[in-house]
Amino acid sequence: MPGFEVMSILGRIDAMRAEGRDVVSLTAGEPGSGAPVGVNQAAAQIHANNTVLNYTAAMGIMPLREAIAEHYRRWYGVSVPVERIAVTTGSSGAFMLSFLAAFDPGDRVALARPGYPAYRNILTALGIEVVDLDCGPAERFQPTVAQLEAQRRSGGLAGVILASPANPTGTMIDREKLTTLSGWCAEHEVQLVSDEIYHGISFGAENVSASEIDARAVVISSFSKYWGMPGWRLGWMVLPEHLVDPVSRLAGNVALCPPHATQLAAVEAFTPESLSFAAGQVHGYAAARQVVLSQLGDLGWGEVAPADGAFYVYAHLGAQLDRFGNSTAYCQALLEEAGVAIVPGTDFDPVAGAQWVRLSLAPGEPAVAEGIRRILQFQQGHAQPERIS
Amino acid sequence: MPGFEVMSILGRIDAMRAEGRDVVSLTAGEPGSGAPVGVNQAAAQIHANNTVLNYTAAMGIMPLREAIAEHYRRWYGVSVPVERIAVTTGSSGAFMLSFLAAFDPGDRVALARPGYPAYRNILTALGIEVVDLDCGPAERFQPTVAQLEAQRRSGGLAGVILASPANPTGTMIDREKLTTLSGWCAEHEVQLVSDEIYHGISFGAENVSASEIDARAVVISSFSKYWGMPGWRLGWMVLPEHLVDPVSRLAGNVALCPPHATQLAAVEAFTPESLSFAAGQVHGYAAARQVVLSQLGDLGWGEVAPADGAFYVYAHLGAQLDRFGNSTAYCQALLEEAGVAIVPGTDFDPVAGAQWVRLSLAPGEPAVAEGIRRILQFQQGHAQPERIS
Repeated sequence: MPGFEVMSILGRIDAMRAEGRDVVSLTAGEPGSGAPVGVNQAAAQIHANNTVLNYTAAMGIMPLREAIAEHYRRWYGVSVPVERIAVTTGSSGAFMLSFLAAFDPGDRVALARPGYPAYRNILTALGIEVVDLDCGPAERFQPTVAQLEAQRRSGGLAGVILASPANPTGTMIDREKLTTLSGWCAEHEVQLVSDEIYHGISFGAENVSASEIDARAVVISSFSKYWGMPGWRLGWMVLPEHLVDPVSRLAGNVALCPPHATQLAAVEAFTPESLSFAAGQVHGYAAARQVVLSQLGDLGWGEVAPADGAFYVYAHLGAQLDRFGNSTAYCQALLEEAGVAIVPGTDFDPVAGAQWVRLSLAPGEPAVAEGIRRILQFQQGHAQPERIS
Repeated sequence: MPGFEVMSILGRIDAMRAEGRDVVSLTAGEPGSGAPVGVNQAAAQIHANNTVLNYTAAMGIMPLREAIAEHYRRWYGVSVPVERIAVTTGSSGAFMLSFLAAFDPGDRVALARPGYPAYRNILTALGIEVVDLDCGPAERFQPTVAQLEAQRRSGGLAGVILASPANPTGTMIDREKLTTLSGWCAEHEVQLVSDEIYHGISFGAENVSASEIDARAVVISSFSKYWGMPGWRLGWMVLPEHLVDPVSRLAGNVALCPPHATQLAAVEAFTPESLSFAAGQVHGYAAARQVVLSQLGDLGWGEVAPADGAFYVYAHLGAQLDRFGNSTAYCQALLEEAGVAIVPGTDFDPVAGAQWVRLSLAPGEPAVAEGIRRILQFQQGHAQPERIS
């Protein structure tokens, strides 16, 4: 398993800051907002009362599963029986459980490249074969039925992982396309896993959940992004009937249960106040996104993925590649010389990622604006003819 | 993967209590104490301040890793570099990470039967072959070098999992035996995994950590038992050098990081006040243990495993088997008729477990005393000749 390039960048940021350098970090997929106040208040009260926090049911506490079911009714107009909802230790826990339950070693599972590297790495660790789908601008960075069909014919396919909005591209899958992909999966008995952890964070496009369209899909979501709770480690799955029992048996063994206090507190994530707090953060990401998109001309980068949702801009470096050779060298020079950290695409795309970078909008508009200002200055400095010192 | 029998018992307890029945549950491996006050206060403060809780380093925050290293110096007199300490999402997270890092599908890994069922079930889910070691009274319920050697010769062995104190038996491995087992593992390049999650809970016997003896062992521990924090989901590993990098690469993919607030609060688990609180709980388990051991004669059960540590009594049902046939039937009748819940040994030992039961001391002396009173009455009722009603 390869290490993440982002890890060495994060290490370097820490070292530079320890030396007193002022670094603008646009690396992390972490909201800067913290959790909604009601969630924090509930958690504070639980601990202030010295509440005994034993194991919960492996699938989570019933009030939270019910709150999640109600959330699906309100947001998507879909009625999901509470038995099909599993609370998990972050979406990481959901990926592990669903991959173990749905796939066997040697199975072939398809996913978009570029994509979130942990899909690939968890599947590989479990002995499942990853089938790369080369999804560039022509495919709007999302898998097509033609790609899936080609892979099915050539070597068989047990599953496909979709992510909408996607990391690192932000690209979303609309209702028509999701219906087509889901129909193809049903026809060929391919397990659809739909990663919806960025739902709620979008800039005009509709959040379509696979749970509205496909009762056989595994839907994975999380409190980490929209609700600003990455460090709390809480997510959930909407499971198809055929995976409820396998996941429920696995969950107790693999994880025992998700964190108890966090489950209790997370019920408060669905109050009007908390949802309004979360929606407010999205306005902040939208403003940061506008800062980047409005300066793409000056940045002179190449192709930019449609940032329909999530909080990333994924861009080809274009002419900057002539000067730096690849995105890793570009990111290193940018960090050392201008104190701005963004990440090369190589973690997300082992093939073409050396030409792309991901910039995170999550740190918010002021940080992003300062970052872009420094990037423009940095690029301008490198555009000058070399001076003899 | 089989479901746990304990799950149906827990479900039945809930249903009976909902009907207003008074049930004494001696089922769970969960301390009733809650966390030390200092840990709760720290967690309450973190949430009251609306602290932004982002991802931490995958191996955990440095202050907690340092506090754990210091704990090894104080408790065991062993100096472990902080780089070898990985904070995990409970010991469950530690088992998953260490098994993925140390073993490959098809590897053979040995463990004691009876034992904690999740070892077997996680290994099986990962395609690793479980090698049962039949550990009864003659072996003090712990693996012997002779058993390991026989398995190595017959089919090879990649690893062995030891647990001391063990669940369900409470039996501990002393320094001499651990040294012998560790030496045999080193000689034959068998990876030793030492589950030490019940350390601190023992009744006279010395807690010997594999970290004192064997720098190549994986040591797994947890805040769940001694510190009374099962629902918090926090544990750790002491890793051998050769697994630091593999685990560190896996951890970010598989779990991202352990819960952030819990990591911050857990630093307070090592204060003199918290350690004194935890030690006080052990006195309670000792009193409960004495209640059971002092009435073994009246109970008329058969063999009882040496309850050196942890908070369980694992007993052969002896003459009760003549009346009930197996431990599942015994436990069901006991629950329905006397309102006492203990668990059959079948979850821990698929072969001989139908003759054994596990009684948990964790609920404390008053509950255990009331449970034993009811068990004696229940058994006495069944000992009477049947009356015609």
